[in-house]
Amino acid sequence: MKSSPSAPAPKSGTCKVAILGFGTVGSSVARILSERTRTGLTLTHICNRNFERKKNAGWLPAHVQWTNDINDVLASDADIVVEAIGGLQPAGDWVRNALRAGKSVVTANKQLIAHSGPELIDLAQTMNRHIAFGASVAGGVPVISGLQEGLAGDELYKIYGILNGTCNYILSQIESSGVSFEAALADAQRLGFAEADPTDDVDGLDARAKLAILARVGLHGNVDPSAIACRSISAIEAVDFEYAKQLLCTIRQISWAELDGQQLFATVQPALVGLSSPLARVQGSQNLVMSTGKYGGETVFAGHGAGGNPTAVAVVSDILAIARARQDITQGFAEIPKSSPQVTADFSTRHYLRFKVTDRPGIIGALADIFSHCGINIDSVLQKPGYLKSSLPFVITLEVCKASLVEKAIGQISHLDFLVQPCVHLPILD
Amino acid sequence: MKSSPSAPAPKSGTCKVAILGFGTVGSSVARILSERTRTGLTLTHICNRNFERKKNAGWLPAHVQWTNDINDVLASDADIVVEAIGGLQPAGDWVRNALRAGKSVVTANKQLIAHSGPELIDLAQTMNRHIAFGASVAGGVPVISGLQEGLAGDELYKIYGILNGTCNYILSQIESSGVSFEAALADAQRLGFAEADPTDDVDGLDARAKLAILARVGLHGNVDPSAIACRSISAIEAVDFEYAKQLLCTIRQISWAELDGQQLFATVQPALVGLSSPLARVQGSQNLVMSTGKYGGETVFAGHGAGGNPTAVAVVSDILAIARARQDITQGFAEIPKSSPQVTADFSTRHYLRFKVTDRPGIIGALADIFSHCGINIDSVLQKPGYLKSSLPFVITLEVCKASLVEKAIGQISHLDFLVQPCVHLPILD
Repeated sequence: MKSSPSAPAPKSGTCKVAILGFGTVGSSVARILSERTRTGLTLTHICNRNFERKKNAGWLPAHVQWTNDINDVLASDADIVVEAIGGLQPAGDWVRNALRAGKSVVTANKQLIAHSGPELIDLAQTMNRHIAFGASVAGGVPVISGLQEGLAGDELYKIYGILNGTCNYILSQIESSGVSFEAALADAQRLGFAEADPTDDVDGLDARAKLAILARVGLHGNVDPSAIACRSISAIEAVDFEYAKQLLCTIRQISWAELDGQQLFATVQPALVGLSSPLARVQGSQNLVMSTGKYGGETVFAGHGAGGNPTAVAVVSDILAIARARQDITQGFAEIPKSSPQVTADFSTRHYLRFKVTDRPGIIGALADIFSHCGINIDSVLQKPGYLKSSLPFVITLEVCKASLVEKAIGQISHLDFLVQPCVHLPILD
Repeated sequence: MKSSPSAPAPKSGTCKVAILGFGTVGSSVARILSERTRTGLTLTHICNRNFERKKNAGWLPAHVQWTNDINDVLASDADIVVEAIGGLQPAGDWVRNALRAGKSVVTANKQLIAHSGPELIDLAQTMNRHIAFGASVAGGVPVISGLQEGLAGDELYKIYGILNGTCNYILSQIESSGVSFEAALADAQRLGFAEADPTDDVDGLDARAKLAILARVGLHGNVDPSAIACRSISAIEAVDFEYAKQLLCTIRQISWAELDGQQLFATVQPALVGLSSPLARVQGSQNLVMSTGKYGGETVFAGHGAGGNPTAVAVVSDILAIARARQDITQGFAEIPKSSPQVTADFSTRHYLRFKVTDRPGIIGALADIFSHCGINIDSVLQKPGYLKSSLPFVITLEVCKASLVEKAIGQISHLDFLVQPCVHLPILD
């Protein structure tokens, strides 16, 4: 079912754009295309279910055609299709069908690109069309183009940063208000910063999809997101921020990928970061990505990682890049990474272990024995006064060693009877 | 005079690169091209005076031809010429001749691009070739491509940041060691962070060339660098950092361009910036650029702004972009800005005025009268104890008003007989 055009069609010679999905991102893209008239882009179609209640947006050019049928878009003369639906299906099939129909595709869909990116790039190349996904990571922060173009001359080996605003908000709340994780999460849900089911955000699944995309683009490794180990932020308590402060650190959900030959270290987990690091100062929905290269050293990209308008900027930038390159459709945009590195979470870092115990003599001795047996050196023992002896939190920091060694020690420690709750284990990023 | 090739020529199908100038940047570009063999780029020629003493770099591929005659490069089969000489001449003529000879050009030359960018882009377009200059601003920080590609979908209206590492080093030294400007400059010269003639750096001429380029690329205004007002950092004393700290600020050389209709506010000058701003934490040769757009809000780019390797990364990234786009030589890279905005330095900000006076009754009253007559509101008066009454520094901060109003008041104040030295006037950037 199509709405009939009620105004003259756009002039020829411009690049015609169709949008699938008129939610937060789709409508922001439509607004930028409508307001910025000198881009050579023309919005021609919007595909959305039940569009009748949406199509009355007064700011849309009258020539825009609405439909609820993807086939209308596939059969149209649109050059570029913007996928702003999200999720794996039907978005995946719609993107495939758009490419097969000879359209180039721009998508903000991190899960689709993380899971099916190489296949979709391959399909786009077969069809001599482009697929671009700059909006799929860090919203408006131009990190995909930065890694792909601006730093193409370097050999990057490390990419890390803060890719999830929900975790950032929750951790900041625990830090500033001393509330529990549960209270901070409920607060974030009430304010619309967290979804009803917050699993993807707090357990790191959202960030690892983005990290897999960054690793493909910047480290040229074909990384399966499910191979990236994630640890939830849900174990973090206010007392961890107090101890972190004593160590001149704070706690953030950090996504980290580092290439070492054919091995790719990659995790998404809460970690201690120095108060002087740019990571410590990321606020709210801000995202920050740092890359390190053999020649150029460290580069920082930061900005708004979420929201309709910042994400739409990334989408429109991709549309413009495709429009510029359209005469030469063979020009490669996204490339399929050549290598398939072995992914491991076994980073070597300093470590923060926070215990909660029923106090009695001999606890430190028992723990020290286990660390010593595992070949791990203790760096410091911190204990703040003022807690109940029946549930006493204290911290042991360890010198640089592999995470797997620490996990082995924690396995042995978990059998000790003075523990009130499992040990909280965070890497310390220096 | 050519050195004869002593090894098989590179395989066909690759993109051939010639480098003009084998100094810090040129040799770093050569090294990256020699070490990164899977880029599809081949270094074929190096043009440098007295090359005999340089050509023995053991890491260069044996097929590279050395010459001291630019005409050898112009007559060669090189596809892309890298200009790494610096300065307006002979670099300018060599770039023009390379374009006329059908080569694309990559340059790191900020003065050449700031002064002749539109003419060179025009020439490149006439010749159906590319000219790229990502390395001309902020070395390895991919801000040119970020503004041109990654944020192309936004309407940027403000670009500001720290673009000169020498000033940053000198100001940091005054701040941390309490030394005079002269001592900090001498120190920087001794360590090689400042040139024998430091005018371009400390007076802002280096930064304004870069700001003019950023304004062209990001704000699409054809800005003549000489139209951008500069103020030297040489008047800053340690006491200014003490007062700045009291105002929760520090002092940095800030380059700032902001579009307001057909008017472009632009200056390079020392300014007070809040301690919580990313600008306050820029260290050494680091550069940081912030852009603000109508849709995407604020984006930050930071990294190494100088040095052979970071700058060479930007050069090689540009070479790769041209190599990718070579099949379609009509694809626009750099565009000549359409508008020629009226450039003014008359920003509205809060203001910091530091006086040094022979103390006597009535000084504040005399100053307050002048501000009042000029329609300026005083915000605060700060005076630290422990100074000689014959040379007493104190500070007046003013509420938001135009810089021109403050200059008018300072003109009247300059006639007052209690002044020991001219008033130091800095904007406070909030």
